[in-house]
Amino acid sequence: MICAASGKCMTEKNHGAGYHSPGKSEEYKRACYEACEKAMALIEECKSSLEAVTAAVAVLEDSPCTNAGIGSCLTLEGSVECDASVMDGKTFGYGAVGAVAGIKNPVKVAHCLLREETKGLMPLGRIPPCFLAGKGAYEWAIRHGIEETPPDGLVTQSSLSAYRKYKQRLQAFERREDSQAGCSIKKRKVEPAASDHTVSDKLLDTVGAICIDCHGNISSAVSSGGLAMKHPGRVGQAAVYGCGCWALNASASKPVSVACSTTGCGEYLLKTMLARRCAEAVLQSENATQSTSQVFKQDFIESPFLANVAQKHGGAIIVRCEENQAELVWAHTTDSMCIGYMSGGKGRPKTRISRLPESAIPGNSLALEGTVSNIS
Amino acid sequence: MICAASGKCMTEKNHGAGYHSPGKSEEYKRACYEACEKAMALIEECKSSLEAVTAAVAVLEDSPCTNAGIGSCLTLEGSVECDASVMDGKTFGYGAVGAVAGIKNPVKVAHCLLREETKGLMPLGRIPPCFLAGKGAYEWAIRHGIEETPPDGLVTQSSLSAYRKYKQRLQAFERREDSQAGCSIKKRKVEPAASDHTVSDKLLDTVGAICIDCHGNISSAVSSGGLAMKHPGRVGQAAVYGCGCWALNASASKPVSVACSTTGCGEYLLKTMLARRCAEAVLQSENATQSTSQVFKQDFIESPFLANVAQKHGGAIIVRCEENQAELVWAHTTDSMCIGYMSGGKGRPKTRISRLPESAIPGNSLALEGTVSNIS
Repeated sequence: MICAASGKCMTEKNHGAGYHSPGKSEEYKRACYEACEKAMALIEECKSSLEAVTAAVAVLEDSPCTNAGIGSCLTLEGSVECDASVMDGKTFGYGAVGAVAGIKNPVKVAHCLLREETKGLMPLGRIPPCFLAGKGAYEWAIRHGIEETPPDGLVTQSSLSAYRKYKQRLQAFERREDSQAGCSIKKRKVEPAASDHTVSDKLLDTVGAICIDCHGNISSAVSSGGLAMKHPGRVGQAAVYGCGCWALNASASKPVSVACSTTGCGEYLLKTMLARRCAEAVLQSENATQSTSQVFKQDFIESPFLANVAQKHGGAIIVRCEENQAELVWAHTTDSMCIGYMSGGKGRPKTRISRLPESAIPGNSLALEGTVSNIS
Repeated sequence: MICAASGKCMTEKNHGAGYHSPGKSEEYKRACYEACEKAMALIEECKSSLEAVTAAVAVLEDSPCTNAGIGSCLTLEGSVECDASVMDGKTFGYGAVGAVAGIKNPVKVAHCLLREETKGLMPLGRIPPCFLAGKGAYEWAIRHGIEETPPDGLVTQSSLSAYRKYKQRLQAFERREDSQAGCSIKKRKVEPAASDHTVSDKLLDTVGAICIDCHGNISSAVSSGGLAMKHPGRVGQAAVYGCGCWALNASASKPVSVACSTTGCGEYLLKTMLARRCAEAVLQSENATQSTSQVFKQDFIESPFLANVAQKHGGAIIVRCEENQAELVWAHTTDSMCIGYMSGGKGRPKTRISRLPESAIPGNSLALEGTVSNIS
């Protein structure tokens, strides 16, 4: 039994003192701690790893400090739209929602979609959906008894004030653009990426979890409020198959379970299919740390799919389990990432904030650590 | 220069005489013919392969006989919602829309998203979206000058009458369920999959195209109205990265271009990431026919990701290009698939309807053919 949760992956060197303020760090660590505790309590009741990851991510969604569920970034129109997905390593089932509004815990919709899918074909031989987006996803969720929330139910004082600040800057930028409309310029004009001109301070705080249950089944989940000031309808990696989460149970031919959950810039994680890529590399290798490092370097930082991207912001938690030994690896190219983990039902969750060295370049350097646990 | 278009991929043995009526076959072939002509005309004007595949798929969307654009299957609520995506082998750019309503040519939104993306970051350092869904996708499209259509603009007499028929059957089924509500049964009750009880006759007619332009760049596109009687908001493979289309230009280390566009049951194509899988296998092998056959058997028909699926309905067109030789392969597990292709600007498009042998089992057997052209 193991549970790992990643609660925070941000690049914020440019915003103030350079790192999380101690108060904020404690808040992130507390959310990860509670997510681990919640998931482990379910695992000890012999609930499935799928239920455990869903519950862990729901705890992280309920924490206003993460960019998932309550506290999510606001869209260009001031609304909240969330992406989430789950994968069950036992059945290879996958459920996902994209750009869904008005739902307290988007991960619960993804979980419910997966559960409904396993019931087989619907009346008239219809194939049940695994991926729903927008208003249709909301309606499906309500019909399946999932808790809704009023339009401002996921907005916090902090997300609203960030939104107002960005909106003002954007309007000021557009006014300047209008006043210069006489000079036609083909290439898109972009504000300099200086600290007070970018929207990256709430950019990357996607949350995720991986659990192994008492039967040895592995699952993973991910949830995100997406990019600040994104266009409504935008779907990021947290909803997309192979990109946000991945989980494969051990099989007769390969007695190793693996799972991954990613965090960072959705578009970049999507184009590199990072969750599946990490999990598959770790499955094929006996050294999870080394293969994760290789994937992050070759298939993310130097990926030909991100050739024109200057800074590749991403992170992942990866679990590799063989016999009774589980290896947890966390890796990120962002300034910092908060993780929590616990194993075996004894003791308490461990949490920490992993950071890039001061000299490293966010989006181009990698921080990577791991831990090995014996699981029962 | 080459253009290949797949217009029809259906399983319909159970519906009437067993195969397409001659009239319908001609209609499908004509749509593929016109798609090839349109794309080749653009290629001869030295337009990009991306513009050519978009135009080819737009012709197929405009044909009322395909399940894309006009003529798309209706959702459970009687609306039309479409998925589409494009991939540019030169830049590895990808653009996609999911569950979008009110747009005449969904593929044009995917194309426009890709084009906007290549312009780089937006004001305030925001990352441009590559994947939009639902109402937000519609609004973005309108703001970018893409043609809209009234709510019933994509509905045809044929799609409406199919919808009414299914709706009646579903209501009759639900009435029977209600009258038996006393006996509680946990497992979902499904109507027998007999001919007049399933919704599969408009199930699989996703359209796609692959083109190579005069600079040797390869692109692919795909568009779909999705499953008949799908839940609103359902997103299928045609919108999902790696699942609906894939395209990679030749590189210094690997002087082979490949592309793929898939058609069939969206959920199954999504879970097997079939477009990317086919393209990568063909890239690694010198025998496109053999490697496609292997992928379809191992990674689709016998895929562990579809372990509980009785009939795997899917199809694909694949192009492998090395030096001046382009190999086009088409493969399907459905009863039939319509394809068209032309090369080199001389002559006229060739079209044909490929069929499984009478004795084969749709969803479990494979039909596969190929053709080789010299391209200039």
